[in-house]
Order: sequence, then C-alpha cells, then structure tokens
Amino acid sequence: MTSVVIIGFGNVGQHLFQAFEEVSGASVVQVYSRKEQLDLDDTPITNSLQDLTEADLYILAVPDDIISDFSEQLPFSNRLVVHTSGSVSMEMLSEENRKGIFYPLQTFSKDHEVNFKEIPICCEAVYEEDLELIMSLGELISDKVVQIDSEKRTRLHLAAVFVNNFTNHLYHLSDSYLKKNDIDFDLLKPLIKETAIKVQTLSPFEAQTGPAKRKDRKTINKHLELMEDREYRKLYRSLTKSISKTHGKKL
Amino acid sequence: MTSVVIIGFGNVGQHLFQAFEEVSGASVVQVYSRKEQLDLDDTPITNSLQDLTEADLYILAVPDDIISDFSEQLPFSNRLVVHTSGSVSMEMLSEENRKGIFYPLQTFSKDHEVNFKEIPICCEAVYEEDLELIMSLGELISDKVVQIDSEKRTRLHLAAVFVNNFTNHLYHLSDSYLKKNDIDFDLLKPLIKETAIKVQTLSPFEAQTGPAKRKDRKTINKHLELMEDREYRKLYRSLTKSISKTHGKKL
Repeated sequence: MTSVVIIGFGNVGQHLFQAFEEVSGASVVQVYSRKEQLDLDDTPITNSLQDLTEADLYILAVPDDIISDFSEQLPFSNRLVVHTSGSVSMEMLSEENRKGIFYPLQTFSKDHEVNFKEIPICCEAVYEEDLELIMSLGELISDKVVQIDSEKRTRLHLAAVFVNNFTNHLYHLSDSYLKKNDIDFDLLKPLIKETAIKVQTLSPFEAQTGPAKRKDRKTINKHLELMEDREYRKLYRSLTKSISKTHGKKL
Repeated sequence: MTSVVIIGFGNVGQHLFQAFEEVSGASVVQVYSRKEQLDLDDTPITNSLQDLTEADLYILAVPDDIISDFSEQLPFSNRLVVHTSGSVSMEMLSEENRKGIFYPLQTFSKDHEVNFKEIPICCEAVYEEDLELIMSLGELISDKVVQIDSEKRTRLHLAAVFVNNFTNHLYHLSDSYLKKNDIDFDLLKPLIKETAIKVQTLSPFEAQTGPAKRKDRKTINKHLELMEDREYRKLYRSLTKSISKTHGKKL
C-alpha cells in the first residue's frame, strides 16, 4: 500500500484524490489545503505545512508558479516529492528531497468528471526506485503510464496547448461570431464532437477537409467578406495559409 | 412516402443514402453516379442525367463548384431540387426548378459511420410547401432540423470551418511537431476528446484554461523557445494574443 499526501486541492488535486479513493493499493493519508470547511470523510486535512504527516509520496498539485516555493518550504528531507505540472522542469523542485514528476495529461474542470483510466500519466524521477514507485502508483488509476523526461514533457505540454487551449479558443470565436449573428452555437456541437472523435482513429492529415485544403478561393473570399472583425480575418488567413501549405497547394 | 433521387454519390450522398435506407417514410428511388460497378441492392443507378426518374425531391450532393452547372443540366422543370452545401447560395440553383437547401452540418468521411440522429439539418426553400416537405424528410433521419436562410447558413458554415477545419489543422500541427520530437501523438487523444466533450455542456468561454488565459508569460516564453519553426511561433503568438484579449488581460 503506497501512502500519499496531496498538497494543494484545486482541480488536479481533487481529481487525483477521487481517483485514488476508488482503488486499493494507494491510500491518501492526508490532504493539505488552505480551504476551510473541506470535508473528505476519513482523510485528515491540514492547512499547515509543518503538520504534514509521513508518507511514501508527496504530490504537489499547486499552481506552476508556486511549485518551487512550496517545495522549498517542506519541513523534511530525503522524501519523494513530485509535482503535476506539464511545463515546469523537475529541476525546479527543492534539492532537499527526492524529485519526481506525476503529470496527468488532461484538462480538469470542477463538476466535470473524467475517466482517469484513459488519462496518460507522464512520469519522471531522479532515482530508478522512485520512478518505479511513481509509475506503479500511476498504473493503479490509469491504463497509460509513460516515462518521459522534462524536455519532452514540456514539448508535449506545448502540443497540448495547441489541441486544447487553442482549439477551445476557436470554439469560443465561433460561439461569439454566431451570437452576434443570432445563430445557435448548439448547431455546431455534433461537428465539434465528430472532429475530435475522427482523429482518434484517423491521422489529422488524412482527416483534413474544407476550402483551404481544396484550394476553394471562391468560398474563402466569401468567408472573408462575412467577417466584420479584423482579428477574425487575420486568424482565418493565417490558418488557411498554413493548411494550404501543409497540403501542398498555394493559394 | 417521399420519393428521393440522390444525384452524386460522394461522402454526403452515400451517408444520406444510408440514413434514408434505415427509415420508413422516405424511399431513394434512384441514384445518379458516374462511378461504375456501384451495387446498391434494389436501388437503380444511372450515370446519365437524361435517365433521371420522377421523384418528389432531387438532392444534388455534388461538389460546390459544379452545383450550378448540374442544376442547369437537369432535363425537367418545376420539380423540387435541393443542394447539400453549406456555403453555396440557394440562388445558384437553376430557375427551371423549385429551389431548396438540405444541408447536413457534419463532416463526412469514408468508412467512418456517423449517427445521423444528432446531425443538424439546415433547410431552406422558396415555397412554404417545399420547405415543409424538406423539413419533414429531415425529421425522419435527424432530431435537429432547422430552417435557416442562405446568408445565415453561410455564416454557420464559416463558423464550422473554425471548429472543424482549423481545429483539425491544430491537431495536425501538434502531430507533426510531436513526430519531429519523437513523442507519441496518441498521448494527446484523450485530451482532444475531452476538450470537445467539455463544450457540449460548458460554454467555450468558461472552459478556457492555459498560459494565455492566466497571463503566464514564463510558460509562453518557454513554449516559444521550443518551436524551431517560424510558422508555429507565428500561429502560437496570434492565438495567444487573441485568447488574452478575450479574457481581458494584456500580455
């Protein structure tokens, strides 16, 4: 049984806690959170780093910019401390403890359950033994546990920004554009879903369709006329150009 | 029983044929296709427009740029002829027949089945009676049939380009970037799916996360350093700027 302390109880901390609660083999022995009136049934909660209990693993699930500070403040040494961030290097953790990474590659929201089994967990550690412990723990909750170093993890995180943050922003731009023109965004939802499901089995290169790919200048010009906002036209042009380049057609 | 002739048997034509085959209330009495050796069991096929049989509705499921030509070549008049395109105006159809639109808002691929019930069908017609026939036909195969005029349909199609073509291209850029760095694109697939599923219930504005939204200059700079390709950096910058603007934060 691996004992775990979760430090930080935002979206990632809460989802991890939930996932560990549902399996045997791991036990969350304490949660650190500054939130008062948190009720986790049998799991003790503290809001003081001084009161952290002993455990096999400390998971720092705090915002990127305070990971380093938090790890420096831990009142113990030579224990295994990991963080959960995609973009923060392992080196940012304090030298006082044994370092590692436990990065679940997913977007977590309050009130939106996710199936942890499908979430890739990217692991790293300085010592082989620690890596084994981290990966075994990952395998309790996920079917996709991989070892990946800090540089590759940051590159993966960058790619995740493209498919998650940027994609979601394209959804927002569409939503906003349709609202202005009194058209229901719900009409696009099945298309949004299908676009994401298609690339689960087809490569995005093969899945590409649309006016930019087929060099349909007429439709592209009509679209440009229908965008009153300069920013939309600019993004439309850049992305259209990038698609044409990818598919070997000059516009 | 509404009798239908499908003209053109590409992705849209084939998926429509399949959908009509599965319901009672509509019957595809003929398919026009230039493909030889097509076998549709009981449905007659022709490759000559001169041999088109009589029907309540003719669905032109041909590429955008030949819709107009095809409609001009039909050897009859005063019948109901619709096209299935998102971006071609109803006016492009020949004056010889009664015009209409039957636009299923989805991306269709060979060998990838879709659930037609979920696909919005956008309808338009010159005459009220024709509109009723088109919409009733749509309701046989879909739970979401709406009336929408040509201008709004084109705007909807433009928004669809953002959430489908552009989004898929972002998937491709990630795929390509990861390949170059020897990282498995499969790791992003659960995130891609979750991003699309999240906005089925949450607005994309609420769903937004990431460094651009939280004004995380450090991560943004690190990402920019990790992109060797100028085009990637340019797109990253434009989209990051657009997100910051949307969420009221200057970078």
